[in-house]
Amino acid sequence: MSEQVRGRFITVEGTEGVGKSTNIAFIQTLLDDANIPHIVSREPGGTPLAEEIRNVLVVPRDEAMCELSELLLVFAARAQHLKTLIEPALEQGIWVLCDRFTDATFAYQGGGRGISVDLISQLQDLVQGRVRPDCTLLLDAPVDVGMARAGARGALDRFEQEKQTFFEKVRGAYLQRVEQEPDRFAVVDASADLNTVQANIAQALIAQIDLYNGGRHG
Amino acid sequence: MSEQVRGRFITVEGTEGVGKSTNIAFIQTLLDDANIPHIVSREPGGTPLAEEIRNVLVVPRDEAMCELSELLLVFAARAQHLKTLIEPALEQGIWVLCDRFTDATFAYQGGGRGISVDLISQLQDLVQGRVRPDCTLLLDAPVDVGMARAGARGALDRFEQEKQTFFEKVRGAYLQRVEQEPDRFAVVDASADLNTVQANIAQALIAQIDLYNGGRHG
Repeated sequence: MSEQVRGRFITVEGTEGVGKSTNIAFIQTLLDDANIPHIVSREPGGTPLAEEIRNVLVVPRDEAMCELSELLLVFAARAQHLKTLIEPALEQGIWVLCDRFTDATFAYQGGGRGISVDLISQLQDLVQGRVRPDCTLLLDAPVDVGMARAGARGALDRFEQEKQTFFEKVRGAYLQRVEQEPDRFAVVDASADLNTVQANIAQALIAQIDLYNGGRHG
Repeated sequence: MSEQVRGRFITVEGTEGVGKSTNIAFIQTLLDDANIPHIVSREPGGTPLAEEIRNVLVVPRDEAMCELSELLLVFAARAQHLKTLIEPALEQGIWVLCDRFTDATFAYQGGGRGISVDLISQLQDLVQGRVRPDCTLLLDAPVDVGMARAGARGALDRFEQEKQTFFEKVRGAYLQRVEQEPDRFAVVDASADLNTVQANIAQALIAQIDLYNGGRHG
């Protein structure tokens, strides 16, 4: 028996309203067409327990949540998600396509809230060990474009209620992540027309599929 | 105007069924009699948001919670509790009497689950800064005595459902904490008759009241 090739861990990132859901559905069709077993998940959340933690994080309430509590909740949900869903899937050769992951923590809690990158990195190492996404699609668009789209969706969660200056900092932190790890990221201009966006996404995904098939058949 | 004397932070610890609730009520009467402003709180919990996190922690469910997620949830609740309730009270000269605090994390997650003391200490420093209890009452009893009492109370939460060997490790870790910080702890034999238990508690509390009044009037 040949050794099981590890599934690839693909994350999709971006500020509010950049089209993550639409494009995750598109990526699923790409993977289906390539006969690649995969699951779709999201953060915070991904398991019933981690979704309970998500609920604590995103539902607006009277009591202001302190930044450190928010950060620790994000990583508590992530620890559960990794151990219960992501790691077992990857080990079985199943790809995991995840709507947001730790880059979002660097962007929202780091860039947005101002929590130190060093602290986030320490928690990343603690919770993830060596697990990192193989490829991260950053759907990037001017903040006002995304906010208009997100606002049209109805009731806003605790993060979506933030102001434009917050999202400018989030976007800036995402772009800084790209500068630090250019090989892992595929940055897609999400303000372009959908055909162009999806052609760019397909290009990034085909490279990942080739790497995976190379591992399986090489 | 004289400077506000900081309230004292008193924690009550012990395994299940050692009589924390009864004795916290007794301590309240002592503080009322001494005209000391105080609040009673508990961990995990203490604010509506931290109580939501408590709920995630203690309610039994099908999905097994990973140890790291449990630890991070405990500290997420603690960060919120400290910032929102404990610190503001202490700064106003109000005593905080808390049913469990970080010694319980060293005991349950450290001793019980086997998480490293070093990691717990790092999170303690991160979340608490320099805040530590001024005095901790450890109600200590053989595990089987407490388990029998807790079992008689009805439906058991996720921690109460643990086995005797777990609580033996928890009790051992509590006693180790006492060895490391003998000055902070007052260990009370909770298997003694209630009068004796409360005489011992009163002795520890009177020392704290004297320190506080010395600060106010000195």
